[in-house]
Amino acid sequence: MSDAPVVDELTPPDRTLMGPGPSDVHPRVLRAMSTPLVGHLDPSFVEIMNEVQELLRYAFRTDNRWTIPISGTGSASMEAAIGNLVEPGDTMLVPTNGYFGGRMQSMAERAGGEVVHVDAPWGEPLDPADVEAAFDEHQPDVFGFVHAETSTGVRQPNVPELTRIAHEHDAYVIADAVTSLGGVELRVDEWGVDVAYSGPQKCLSCPPGASPLTLNDRAMDKVLSREERVRSWYLDLSLLEGYWGDDRAYHHTAPITNVYALREALRLIAEEGIEARWDRHRRVAGALKAGVEAMGLEMNAPDEYWLPSLNAVRVPDGADDGAIIGYLLDEYDLEIAGGLGDLAGEIFRIGCMGHSARPKNVTYLLSSLGDALGAQGADVDADAALPAMTERLAD
Amino acid sequence: MSDAPVVDELTPPDRTLMGPGPSDVHPRVLRAMSTPLVGHLDPSFVEIMNEVQELLRYAFRTDNRWTIPISGTGSASMEAAIGNLVEPGDTMLVPTNGYFGGRMQSMAERAGGEVVHVDAPWGEPLDPADVEAAFDEHQPDVFGFVHAETSTGVRQPNVPELTRIAHEHDAYVIADAVTSLGGVELRVDEWGVDVAYSGPQKCLSCPPGASPLTLNDRAMDKVLSREERVRSWYLDLSLLEGYWGDDRAYHHTAPITNVYALREALRLIAEEGIEARWDRHRRVAGALKAGVEAMGLEMNAPDEYWLPSLNAVRVPDGADDGAIIGYLLDEYDLEIAGGLGDLAGEIFRIGCMGHSARPKNVTYLLSSLGDALGAQGADVDADAALPAMTERLAD
Repeated sequence: MSDAPVVDELTPPDRTLMGPGPSDVHPRVLRAMSTPLVGHLDPSFVEIMNEVQELLRYAFRTDNRWTIPISGTGSASMEAAIGNLVEPGDTMLVPTNGYFGGRMQSMAERAGGEVVHVDAPWGEPLDPADVEAAFDEHQPDVFGFVHAETSTGVRQPNVPELTRIAHEHDAYVIADAVTSLGGVELRVDEWGVDVAYSGPQKCLSCPPGASPLTLNDRAMDKVLSREERVRSWYLDLSLLEGYWGDDRAYHHTAPITNVYALREALRLIAEEGIEARWDRHRRVAGALKAGVEAMGLEMNAPDEYWLPSLNAVRVPDGADDGAIIGYLLDEYDLEIAGGLGDLAGEIFRIGCMGHSARPKNVTYLLSSLGDALGAQGADVDADAALPAMTERLAD
Repeated sequence: MSDAPVVDELTPPDRTLMGPGPSDVHPRVLRAMSTPLVGHLDPSFVEIMNEVQELLRYAFRTDNRWTIPISGTGSASMEAAIGNLVEPGDTMLVPTNGYFGGRMQSMAERAGGEVVHVDAPWGEPLDPADVEAAFDEHQPDVFGFVHAETSTGVRQPNVPELTRIAHEHDAYVIADAVTSLGGVELRVDEWGVDVAYSGPQKCLSCPPGASPLTLNDRAMDKVLSREERVRSWYLDLSLLEGYWGDDRAYHHTAPITNVYALREALRLIAEEGIEARWDRHRRVAGALKAGVEAMGLEMNAPDEYWLPSLNAVRVPDGADDGAIIGYLLDEYDLEIAGGLGDLAGEIFRIGCMGHSARPKNVTYLLSSLGDALGAQGADVDADAALPAMTERLAD
């Protein structure tokens, strides 16, 4: 048995976070995290819970009563959505066009569901005609899709069409909004999304640990009338209903500090205005995109599916993505990421989310990336990036 | 759809936390939480993960390689333990002597296990003879017990005897150490505990959100040789093994800030020394106990099972526990709690954990509680509390 370990003061490097998340956290949110705690059943915390729910509804563009933070990171809200909606015997339709469809499949199977697929290659959105065909063939009970694919930088268009198809087949729709909530247009009620989940460390620019989830009454009715209990006690919404609903009865200890932080991050959204925030992401990420394109790099997604919050940029021929990412981290304290799965080695993933979606970050990103590519021998026109960015910002 | 909600600055009341958790958080831990984030795959975060694992091993008194924080609050580490160890077809033996045995049962059933009981009334520890009899009768595969029952203020003695019985029957032992880790003597390896879990917001005095779990190789071998996948993707240790093991491969985004905080809370333990910390809890909580007894109040647990971190004090005849708890909160910004389940209305639950286990907090608690009881017409000798406390502290 070891003696007491001697561990130094916490002094992590001062990174600029332009990867797929976490994004840079706003100083006001960091400060909220150092607030002394009240108890999770304190009347003052109940008030804070109400405020967080109201702010979350605003960000999701929903009136859903069942709008809460799940006590875990984004994958916990994802599993809460799938594990509650999918019962043994249910069939869930999931997409094949990115990393997170695969995770949906694994969660649905563990919940006791059968999984069927709607096909699309990595890097492309789902085609409504393919979704319709998959519905006709499989008659799934639940349909999951990824609104903003963090693995490919693709934004799913036509969401109202997808939900219409699902509802015509009496199915429930679960949207993965991990990389869209608070950064990319998302209208839960208007678009007919039954369930949506997200993570806080993307466009909300909040440390991970309490993750947004919203369900409409139709979906919650399905959860509350399940025959078999949800397979996770921790994520069982019929139990969480006691804590986040009218009773405020003890279920588990909420991550109090993470709820404080989420409240502050959502306050920043309310102050900015959700539509203004979507515009800012489009504008600032548009400048980032103009900059990398001016350098001679290529975006992985066509413009009509471009996801402002996550820019998938093709690695230039002959360049070593790992070396470039390492150079940016070592020389510039700047985080970006490489590709996952089918796109490993093919793309850089450059986030432009929340507090990171600022000209300051984009300027730094473009200038550092230009240097890194040059240092690694890639044939790019680094000097063209900043003028193109500035011009686009001025538009 | 609502307009942007107007929500004020975060200004929760400044509570003194002497309930069943959260406890008061040390200023150094609060400060760690305002540290800007690095990515969850950043090399510097990998180093922080190593340090947290080493510090957790020290606190658990274990050499277990599989010692990690689970990305959720204490109930998540509890479900990670039970949901991974218990496979469909397994039988789990759980206790009936408090609230958390019931939660173990629900989690084991959801994992597909059969549940059998070892009986003991609320407020008493398990008798090894009863455990032995339950093993002989049911031959369970997994045995869970609660080392420190937060609902009753009872400390389970004879842990090595319980684990010996279980191992003689080839079973695995899961210990609930939520309210003991870092405050009450707990020796995972020496006592033969196969799996133990805890929460950070009790004797570690850390905000909830990343929760300690340790498994020995024998238990992890069972997890890794399961026939059916764990029913939660988020809590599947065979997947988490990729992130917290040698590969450091992406599974989910860790709650980075909560890991920072846990690191600082565990550093404080290493600096104090784990045995010195157990002594402090015994000494300071002993003074609290001497104070309430001098007032004329009665402890719910006999001295030999007394749990220093959670003092269950009988509500005096005729007193209204809710009114007293409300008075303390309103007049003194002081949190204590009432009883749960079989003990609702019968006891006060007064925590003495971590940074709250200080003479300052105990003095304030005794003086405020004396006033509150008097104000509610209870017949107590409030003036006797502080001298008795001071005398005990001087011992």
